[in-house]
Amino acid sequence: MEDTKTNITPFSFELVAQDGSARAGILHTPHGDIHTPIFMPVGTQATVKALTPAQLQELEVQILLSNTYHLYLRPGPDVVADMGGLHKFMDWPKPILTDSGGFQVFSMGTLRAIDEEGVTFKSHIDGSTHRFTPEFSISIQEKLGADIIMAFDECPDPQDKEYNMRAMERTHRWAERCLKAKTRADQALFGIVQGGIFPDLRRQSAEFLASLDFPGYGIGGLSVGESKADMLATIEVVTALLPENKPRYLMGVGTPYDLVESIYRGVDMFDCVLPTRLARHHAAQTLQGRMNLANAAYIRDEHPIDPLCTCYTCTHFSRAYLRHLVSTKEILGATLLSIHNIHTLLELSQRIRESIINHKYSELRQELLRNLEQ
Amino acid sequence: MEDTKTNITPFSFELVAQDGSARAGILHTPHGDIHTPIFMPVGTQATVKALTPAQLQELEVQILLSNTYHLYLRPGPDVVADMGGLHKFMDWPKPILTDSGGFQVFSMGTLRAIDEEGVTFKSHIDGSTHRFTPEFSISIQEKLGADIIMAFDECPDPQDKEYNMRAMERTHRWAERCLKAKTRADQALFGIVQGGIFPDLRRQSAEFLASLDFPGYGIGGLSVGESKADMLATIEVVTALLPENKPRYLMGVGTPYDLVESIYRGVDMFDCVLPTRLARHHAAQTLQGRMNLANAAYIRDEHPIDPLCTCYTCTHFSRAYLRHLVSTKEILGATLLSIHNIHTLLELSQRIRESIINHKYSELRQELLRNLEQ
Ligand SMILES: [Zn+2]
Ligand SMILES: [Zn+2]
Repeated sequence: MEDTKTNITPFSFELVAQDGSARAGILHTPHGDIHTPIFMPVGTQATVKALTPAQLQELEVQILLSNTYHLYLRPGPDVVADMGGLHKFMDWPKPILTDSGGFQVFSMGTLRAIDEEGVTFKSHIDGSTHRFTPEFSISIQEKLGADIIMAFDECPDPQDKEYNMRAMERTHRWAERCLKAKTRADQALFGIVQGGIFPDLRRQSAEFLASLDFPGYGIGGLSVGESKADMLATIEVVTALLPENKPRYLMGVGTPYDLVESIYRGVDMFDCVLPTRLARHHAAQTLQGRMNLANAAYIRDEHPIDPLCTCYTCTHFSRAYLRHLVSTKEILGATLLSIHNIHTLLELSQRIRESIINHKYSELRQELLRNLEQ
Repeated sequence: MEDTKTNITPFSFELVAQDGSARAGILHTPHGDIHTPIFMPVGTQATVKALTPAQLQELEVQILLSNTYHLYLRPGPDVVADMGGLHKFMDWPKPILTDSGGFQVFSMGTLRAIDEEGVTFKSHIDGSTHRFTPEFSISIQEKLGADIIMAFDECPDPQDKEYNMRAMERTHRWAERCLKAKTRADQALFGIVQGGIFPDLRRQSAEFLASLDFPGYGIGGLSVGESKADMLATIEVVTALLPENKPRYLMGVGTPYDLVESIYRGVDMFDCVLPTRLARHHAAQTLQGRMNLANAAYIRDEHPIDPLCTCYTCTHFSRAYLRHLVSTKEILGATLLSIHNIHTLLELSQRIRESIINHKYSELRQELLRNLEQ
């Protein structure tokens, strides 16, 4: 491990306030500051589905996530590098985070074979065979050029302890290989804590990775089928052991409920395809639950999705119009619902951040939980 | 015919300049002025596919077209009326034009039966039977509430003279019925000249409709399979006979070439689904021809579609990124190409308008025709 490599990066995490375990912070990156807690919309294929970068800017999105597995397959990391890197390619001047491809190759149902060295898998597009190793994942992520890159990890079923132990140990060895493979000083490499729903494994993983002094930590292997109680208990175990001065990123989460409860337990960053996926399936996320805009009940409903919401969609369009758009399968339906759903999570993050700074998060959390769907 | 009905409307057409037969004008409407010649993007189902009204405003779109046939079927004219009319429903504060539904019921391949009273047809959505008459089309369009509404006309095959004569005569009787049926003073009803590619019929139609003193005239039944020469010759016959102080709208046209040549022959307004349809099929319109962005040649092309274009797409994104979007079937590809294609036609209209005002359109036309595809 070469400490110098990570220490010279232009990244730092400033803890602005704490309220219980909840934290408000600022993560400094080469493409600007990120005010945490923060939700990161997902641009799987270098685009947040149905939205322009200008619309994302208007939403005050602070950081986007994009997927190494998908960009590796199309258009390929060399194309992105030749076009000046991901920021320029997709016209996103603010911070970007890329995942390592680990989650996709382990979960997409593609045939795969794991060995100590790496993973061989088949493309979901054409069935062609590919191989990722920790070193190769880092090399792809360096070509893509995101501000934050992730260690290549093994993502097992969270219930199988035996497998989780072996996978966790391999993830630790791979984390060290990722650190060694990393060459760019303008990217921050986050380690990923694994260990399923087993407190002893999670403890072991958090402590080991903390010792490697990553500039930030992902919490992986959650929100993959375990109970909410197991998820939240696991988060508590992990955040208690991770260094205070490093951001914690709960991967692939979540819903408004998940944000409220995870931030309460010390998480700083989130990503999830849910807001945009729900939008393409006619659903609006609100702090009072989900609303299916295909519902015939809305045919003459002149109210916006959420009368208190300040997003472009809610300040300009009725439920009746949205219902018309989704029932005629118009693209604008997905666009307008995506805007609302992302706004809802960003606005929620911002409200929670302020309440943490004012040491009022316990009250706000109680208020939010009264209405939120689990 | 009650002249007062059309004369008390808040519509007037101001001829700003003429250059040969080409005209620059201002059409005043209750939702603002339209500077002609002008291209009108089509929002078939009360949405221009893949674009928000905010993006259309940014494109400086002056007037949108929407389709009576489609809105009649979904969500229904009473729903739109109850929601405050089409402007409010779709959040479009500038002028709107609705067609009469005639073109759709005659051309959509739906089973139909025509009689003197009207047309019975089957919905393309569920096969249910419906009937449009001139009076019913006007009543739907009054509920929708566009600024400009169109007379209900019969659209025959342009080559069959016998049929065209009968259809034209019926269109004239229907035009008179539409005028009688109209009740709203805040809408301008345009008559539609028919007559296929037959100069004598077109002359007869233009003269008859001119005598009814409509506030504007559609030229229908063109760009439906006839040759370009026939189309342009027909336009010349018609515009020569239509009153100078009324706008002329060439329906369902067109390409950049069509705009250049039709404006040259005295047309003021155009609509076409082409820019947005091409966009959904990976094609960019430019004044140098079409570009298929799915082409592998663009994989590392860092240039914009058109280096001289000032649209959002061309000022922010490379051909390489657009190729990535279209080859991964991302919605953003259709959005960005729609922006460029609409911008191209609006910018072209604007350039032509300025050259008419400066009496330089002959030169500009020659310059444009050197590069344009027919
Ligand atoms: Zn909203
Ligand atoms: Zn452009």
